[in-house]
Amino acid sequence: MAATLTNPLRVGLRQERVIPPQCLIVFGASGDLTHRKLIPALFELFLQRRLSSEFAVLGCARRPWSDEIFRQTMAERLQPAIAAHPQSWEQFSQGLFYEPVDLQQPEHLVRLAQRLEQVDRQRATRGERTFYLSVSPAFYGSGARALAGAGLLADRQRSRLVIEKPFGTDYASAQQLNRVVRSCGQENQIFRIDHYLGKETVQNIMVLRFANSIFEPLWNRNHISSVQITAAETVGVEQRASYYEQSGALKDMVQNHLTQMLALTAMEPPGRFEPESIRNEKAKVLQAAHLASPEQPWTCCVRGQYGSGGTAERPMASYRHEPGVDPHSTTETYVAVKLFIDNWRWQGVPFYLRTGKHLAKRLSEVTLTFRDAPVRLFDAAAGGVSANQFVIRIQPNEGATFRFEVKAPGSGMRSRPISMNFSYDDSFGEPSDEGYVRLLADAMLGDPTLFTRSDEVEAAWRLYTPILEGLKQSPDKFPAYPYEAGTWGPAESDELLARDGLLWRRP
Amino acid sequence: MAATLTNPLRVGLRQERVIPPQCLIVFGASGDLTHRKLIPALFELFLQRRLSSEFAVLGCARRPWSDEIFRQTMAERLQPAIAAHPQSWEQFSQGLFYEPVDLQQPEHLVRLAQRLEQVDRQRATRGERTFYLSVSPAFYGSGARALAGAGLLADRQRSRLVIEKPFGTDYASAQQLNRVVRSCGQENQIFRIDHYLGKETVQNIMVLRFANSIFEPLWNRNHISSVQITAAETVGVEQRASYYEQSGALKDMVQNHLTQMLALTAMEPPGRFEPESIRNEKAKVLQAAHLASPEQPWTCCVRGQYGSGGTAERPMASYRHEPGVDPHSTTETYVAVKLFIDNWRWQGVPFYLRTGKHLAKRLSEVTLTFRDAPVRLFDAAAGGVSANQFVIRIQPNEGATFRFEVKAPGSGMRSRPISMNFSYDDSFGEPSDEGYVRLLADAMLGDPTLFTRSDEVEAAWRLYTPILEGLKQSPDKFPAYPYEAGTWGPAESDELLARDGLLWRRP
Repeated sequence: MAATLTNPLRVGLRQERVIPPQCLIVFGASGDLTHRKLIPALFELFLQRRLSSEFAVLGCARRPWSDEIFRQTMAERLQPAIAAHPQSWEQFSQGLFYEPVDLQQPEHLVRLAQRLEQVDRQRATRGERTFYLSVSPAFYGSGARALAGAGLLADRQRSRLVIEKPFGTDYASAQQLNRVVRSCGQENQIFRIDHYLGKETVQNIMVLRFANSIFEPLWNRNHISSVQITAAETVGVEQRASYYEQSGALKDMVQNHLTQMLALTAMEPPGRFEPESIRNEKAKVLQAAHLASPEQPWTCCVRGQYGSGGTAERPMASYRHEPGVDPHSTTETYVAVKLFIDNWRWQGVPFYLRTGKHLAKRLSEVTLTFRDAPVRLFDAAAGGVSANQFVIRIQPNEGATFRFEVKAPGSGMRSRPISMNFSYDDSFGEPSDEGYVRLLADAMLGDPTLFTRSDEVEAAWRLYTPILEGLKQSPDKFPAYPYEAGTWGPAESDELLARDGLLWRRP
Repeated sequence: MAATLTNPLRVGLRQERVIPPQCLIVFGASGDLTHRKLIPALFELFLQRRLSSEFAVLGCARRPWSDEIFRQTMAERLQPAIAAHPQSWEQFSQGLFYEPVDLQQPEHLVRLAQRLEQVDRQRATRGERTFYLSVSPAFYGSGARALAGAGLLADRQRSRLVIEKPFGTDYASAQQLNRVVRSCGQENQIFRIDHYLGKETVQNIMVLRFANSIFEPLWNRNHISSVQITAAETVGVEQRASYYEQSGALKDMVQNHLTQMLALTAMEPPGRFEPESIRNEKAKVLQAAHLASPEQPWTCCVRGQYGSGGTAERPMASYRHEPGVDPHSTTETYVAVKLFIDNWRWQGVPFYLRTGKHLAKRLSEVTLTFRDAPVRLFDAAAGGVSANQFVIRIQPNEGATFRFEVKAPGSGMRSRPISMNFSYDDSFGEPSDEGYVRLLADAMLGDPTLFTRSDEVEAAWRLYTPILEGLKQSPDKFPAYPYEAGTWGPAESDELLARDGLLWRRP
C-alpha cells in the first residue's frame, strides 16, 4: 500500500472528482480483500481529500466483532503503511463501523437496515449507500436477493451494488446470475468489478486510441497483422488452490481481464465518452469475436500446467505438489487462445491471448504487430527486417513502446530496429493509482464506465464456451501440457503461433 | 575531429564499403576545408580500414609547397586529434602529395597530368581519380573546363568531379554552370556536395519512411496538417562576412540544405533504392513545389537581420557591426518561407522553412504536425489537446521524437501530451559519422545517391526565383526585419504562421 499513499499537496493539480457523502457497506469485512485492498484504497482516497468528511464504512461479516475490534484489526493489518499518517488514520478510523451480519438470516438484514439508519444520522451520509459483495461467489446471487428483500436496493439513485469477480463460472451461470441481480436492481445500480479496468494503462488504451490522430488510421486489418495480449505471472497458485482448482487460468484470467483488454483494444470509437456508449462498443466487439475454430476448439487453445522448476536457491514446486491441489489435477495454470473478430476492422487478424502462473516474467501487455512494408528498399543490418510493433505495457513499468526501423550508422543504407519508449513513472513522476482506488471511487461516484455490463460479461463467457464444453465432453483433446516453472509455458503454445509464422513476444 | 575517430575494432560489425584504390585530387588544398574536413575525413576512413592501402591524396593550390610541407602543415593543423594515432598518421601521411597548380594556367595542367601518372605508378592507384573542387565558386566552371581540356575527365568510369557548394547563385547561373560541367563530363561523373545529405539523420528520413509500414500510411495530406523544417544556428556570421554579404540566409541555407530536407521528407517512394530512382523522386517533388504565393512572394517570405544581443558576459554584435559587413547591409541573416507542393500527397499542406544565425538554439529538425483527432472524447488535463507531432532531429542529439496524448494519472479520463524519444547515441552507442566522411567515401565509391543532380539543383533555385527577382525589383517589399541576437528571429516570422493559426516549434 505504501506506494499509493499520495502526497496530499499534489492532489490539487490533479483535479480529482470528490466522492459525495455516503456509507460503504463491505460484506466479507473479515476477509483478505478488505484489509488488503478496500480499506487501503479508501484511506488513500481520504488522504487525497477525495472522500467527503461525511463518510462511513460499515464492515459486515459473521464474526461477532465490535466497531472497536474492526478498527483495531484494520489498524494492525495496515501497519506499517499507515504509520506515516497517524493523525489521518485516527480521523479516518472514526468512520469505520462493524455489524455482525449473516446475509442468509433475514433478521440480520432487519438489524442491518436499522444500523444503516443510525450510521446515516451519526455520519450524515444521507442514505447514499454502496454495498460491496466481497463474499464467496456462491453467495453473490443470494446476497443480492437478501439486500433487495430487505428493501436496501430499492432506492435506484442512492444505492449501488458492487460484485467482485468471478461473475459466473460459465455462460449459463453468468446468465443466471445476471437474471438474479437484475431482478434486485437496475443495471445502472450494478457494478461488476474487473480490477484490470482500474489500471491506468488499461484505461490509457482508450485515450491513446481516441485522443490521438495517428493511431486510429493504422488500427485495423489493413495495417495490423496480429495482436498479442499477455498477462504473465511469476507467482504460483500460492494460497488459492481450493479456488484455483475449480477455476484454472481460462476462467481466472482470460474470460475477464484479458478479454476486457481485448475489448478496449479492438472496439470501435464510442459515439460519446459516456458509460453506455463505451459499454455498447465493448459488448459489440465481443459479440463479433469468436475462437479461431469454434468447431475444433482444441486447435486454437493450448492449456498448460507448471511442473517443478526454479533454481537450487529458489526451487518451485510443481502445481500438483502445491498444498490443496489434487495430485492428479488437470487444471490449467497456463492457457493460450487464438481468436478472430468478424467485423470490417479486424476480419482475418488473429488475436492471441495468453496467461500463466510461474512464467519467466511478470508482465501484462498488448502488442500490435504491423504488416511488413510492402517493398523492401533497404537491407537489414542484422537478420531480417523486424515488423513494426506497438506495445502497451499494462504492468510493470506502465507505458508504451514503439519498435521501428531506423538507419544503422555507417556507410550503407541498412536499417536496424530501435525502440522508442515512454513510461508513466518517468513522464509523470508519480505512481499511478492502485486499481482499487479508482474502481472503488468510481463505484461510489456511480460511474459505471469501468465496470462490466451484463451483456459484456455474457459475451465474454460465450466466447470461451466451446472450450469449456469441449473440456467436459472430450477432456482428452485438451491436455494440460507440462511446462517447467519459471519458463514461458509449454512448447505447444509456441507452436500455436509458429503455425502462423509468428512468435510470442519475449520482452 | 576527435569524436569521429572510430575504434577500428568495431568496424567489422558495420560491414562498411571499402573504397577501391584511387587518387583524390584536392584543389584549394591550402584552404580551410582541406584541413578542417577533407583530410580528417580521409584519415577517419583510413582508421576504419575503409581506404585501400593503394590510395593517394594530391593537394593542389597556388602556393609553392612541397609534399613534405603539405604533410607537415596537415599534421600541425590536425593536432591534437591525430596524436592518439601517431603510427597510423605516419603511415597515412605517406599517401599525401602536393603539386602547385593554378587551374587557369594550361601548362600547370600538363604538369598535373604528368604528376598524376607518376602518383599512379608510385601508389598503384590505377588511374582512378576523384577531383575535388574546393575553390572559390567563381572558378567551378573554369576549373571543370580546365580539367576537361587537359583530358583529365575523359575516362567516364574512372574520373569523378566533386563540386562544393554553392552551386550557382540563382536559377540562371545554376543552369549556366550545369551546361558547363555537363560539357566537361557525364552527369554520373559529377558530384554536387550538399553536406546536409552526409548526415545520418538526413539519410534516416528515407529509412524511416520506407523501411517501416507505420509511417507511410500517415505521411500525406489526409493526416498531416503542416510541416516545419528548421536549421537554427547560434553563431553569427563569424569570418565569412565577405561571402555572406553576397549570399544571405536564403542562398546559404534554404535553397540547398533545407530544400534537400524538404525533398527527402516529401518525395514519393522510389521504385528502387538506386541513385537515379531516388534523384528522380527528389527532382519530381521539387518541381511540384512552389512558394505559397509566387505572385506576391513578400507575403510568404520573411527576412530578418540580427541586431545586437546576448548577455553582459557574452555580448553579441549586430550584423551590421560585424567585421567586413556593410554598415547599411540589407543582407538577411534569417529567413522563413512558406511553400506548397501541388501533388496528390501534399496539396494544401503548408511547408514552413526557416533558418537563421544568432538564434536561441542550435538545431536542425523536421517537424510533422498531424491533424487533430476528428472528435474530442477526452478533456485535456491542462490547456488544449496538443496535436500529434513527429520530430526528426537532424542535429544535435540526432534522433526522433513522437508527441502524443496519453491518459493523465488520476481519477478522470483526461489526456496529457507525452514525448517518446529515440536518440542515435543512446541506441547505437557510437557517434554517427561526420557528414564529410560519408560524402567523400561515396564520391570516391562513385555512388551519387547523396549528391544533388542537375535537375534537382535547378528546381531548387527555381523555387526561390520569385523572391530573388522580387528582391532585385522591389527591395522595399522584402525588408530585413531586425531581431535581437540570441532570440528566435523577428516577430514577423511568427506572424507568418500565426496567420495560419500555427506556432513555430520551440524545443
